[in-house]
Amino acid sequence: MSGPRYTETLAKLPATVPFVGPEAMERRSGRTFRTRLGANESVFGPSPHAVEAMCRAAQVTWMYGDSENRDLRDALAAHHEVDAANILVGEGIDGILGYLVRMVVEPGDAVVTSAGAYPTFNYHVNGFGGVLHTVPYRGDFEDPEALIAKSREVAPKLVYLSNPDNPMGSWLSAARVREMVDAVPEGTLMVLDEAYIEFAPDEAIPEIDPEDTRVIRMRTFSKAHGMAGARVGYAIGAADLIAAFDKIRNHFGMTRISQAGALAALEDQGWLEHVRTQVAASRERLGQIASDNGLRALPSATNFVAIDCGGDGDFARAVLEELLARGVFVRMPGVAPLDRCIRVSVGPPEDMEVFAGALPLALAAARTDGG
Amino acid sequence: MSGPRYTETLAKLPATVPFVGPEAMERRSGRTFRTRLGANESVFGPSPHAVEAMCRAAQVTWMYGDSENRDLRDALAAHHEVDAANILVGEGIDGILGYLVRMVVEPGDAVVTSAGAYPTFNYHVNGFGGVLHTVPYRGDFEDPEALIAKSREVAPKLVYLSNPDNPMGSWLSAARVREMVDAVPEGTLMVLDEAYIEFAPDEAIPEIDPEDTRVIRMRTFSKAHGMAGARVGYAIGAADLIAAFDKIRNHFGMTRISQAGALAALEDQGWLEHVRTQVAASRERLGQIASDNGLRALPSATNFVAIDCGGDGDFARAVLEELLARGVFVRMPGVAPLDRCIRVSVGPPEDMEVFAGALPLALAAARTDGG
Repeated sequence: MSGPRYTETLAKLPATVPFVGPEAMERRSGRTFRTRLGANESVFGPSPHAVEAMCRAAQVTWMYGDSENRDLRDALAAHHEVDAANILVGEGIDGILGYLVRMVVEPGDAVVTSAGAYPTFNYHVNGFGGVLHTVPYRGDFEDPEALIAKSREVAPKLVYLSNPDNPMGSWLSAARVREMVDAVPEGTLMVLDEAYIEFAPDEAIPEIDPEDTRVIRMRTFSKAHGMAGARVGYAIGAADLIAAFDKIRNHFGMTRISQAGALAALEDQGWLEHVRTQVAASRERLGQIASDNGLRALPSATNFVAIDCGGDGDFARAVLEELLARGVFVRMPGVAPLDRCIRVSVGPPEDMEVFAGALPLALAAARTDGG
Repeated sequence: MSGPRYTETLAKLPATVPFVGPEAMERRSGRTFRTRLGANESVFGPSPHAVEAMCRAAQVTWMYGDSENRDLRDALAAHHEVDAANILVGEGIDGILGYLVRMVVEPGDAVVTSAGAYPTFNYHVNGFGGVLHTVPYRGDFEDPEALIAKSREVAPKLVYLSNPDNPMGSWLSAARVREMVDAVPEGTLMVLDEAYIEFAPDEAIPEIDPEDTRVIRMRTFSKAHGMAGARVGYAIGAADLIAAFDKIRNHFGMTRISQAGALAALEDQGWLEHVRTQVAASRERLGQIASDNGLRALPSATNFVAIDCGGDGDFARAVLEELLARGVFVRMPGVAPLDRCIRVSVGPPEDMEVFAGALPLALAAARTDGG
């Protein structure tokens, strides 16, 4: 009765998770958060039409979802002016990243990313036995030239770039991203994570031929569309690559409810515009709150703002802890020197005021702790 | 621009899918099904309380689901009188099987199952490079002794048994299943797929110590709870094994809506009882329809009935095609001699009458085809 024989890769994996969720944090602390600004969820919510569509679909959830995600893929293809064969719908970007890493990474294979970039991507790479090679950010920006230089050195299966960047909120121009695509070495696939692209200025959105085999773009309904809890992501890529996912993906893995909700959300571009306006206003407000406290908010092309707490990582961690203790759920970057910042999601005025009330107290307490 | 370098396992995989979904079949044929009796979905639908809960959750789907599935796991633990540490919640049994195979199967590893048993399990085994070893059914039953004998021979990482069985609807006694658990060789994990167990008689449900490291049980909200399109499965197993899933699972993979729906469904045992009663009545009706047509319906402990068409696989396939041509979606077993049958899901009287109307025509047409 010694239990199963795990794979060598699994046996070596640590028991870590990429993120402890807010509910889990609440249970561990015994405190309920007053505001939830740590996961870059859209507190502005999903389109009312999407909610309606999900309610209708809930009534017929005895049926499996369409295994080919046909209606949603067709609508996304029309929206992006590509062929449906260039669109993969999956269980959030997290789910799609997991499939992609599985498809290309064997134990020992190299993967390149930026130190401090998306932990869940790294989780999947580690989970399949890949070896992560990182380059530092340049200032508060991911550094395409460094990512390419490292890729030339280690010949990775994948090189990851998020634009706009999480956790810093910074963005690169379309021209910089295009240059990176053009420089990707043979045999390396670039993963362009555009989870926050709907919040970015037009000049951050590159034109990329969907049949360009050097890059796969990731998009999501979790952020601007306010449907994080529905798990709908999609990828845009070369038809051969998209078809390869069919060899391993969970064909009936999408919920029927989420399929219906995403389709309705995509059709409600007015709601998206409304959210964008609210997000821009809330970013301004976060900037004001930061400067009211003598801090600097970094420019953001996302639905969150990195606020430089003006000290080192230990100080920012102390501020974060003091905010959590006051019922304000926020997160922070994981590596220096990015970790001089806390990362605060935008939200409606009432959430911003909770944050505005808690921040000076948290700063004062952190300064006392440190003194 | 030659595209990504896939893993050796992926490169070797064929572009097959375990099941073509009914919507995909409709698109390919240009016909809409009049009744959907092929995927063992519960046409009786989910609990109205579950639908309400899902509608409520849809409004706050801007939040990720609880990454630990705490409320649902606690409720399931109480329901099964086990510890929450023995419960894994995942994206349907299909999703959980995928995780499990990934955790234990390396390329070349042996896995044992019955020829004709669940194709999606095989899909995952192939998808991770495992080598399937099969034993035949004994009559219309999976054969625990043969599965164990084969396991002694090839020392598989996993041995799969579904009880009740899909696609035949047959079931083994709790005592037979227990004997199999007790005979599982060291180093092999038994996967006991109980997707249909809520329809089975009590004597088919074995007592198993949740900490027994030789077996993991799979359950689902897709069948009796009528929530196939919500993707909620769970596993009951030893705490160490359940914890190991945390190393690789998609922690935020469950939709918030499905979490809420499953919790409400579990609490509505009255609805489950209602569905069980309807299912039993509908099985009777399918038996009657079969005998009205001179055919034999096999005894079933599930929400579907295998109907022996009285000929060989080619004849049953012809009957199936003729049913599909008449807008009746049903499926059939994939291997001889099980494939002398078609597999028909139960449903409300109106669905049964559509089937009753189509079957004699399909049989006549199939006999003409064959003559």
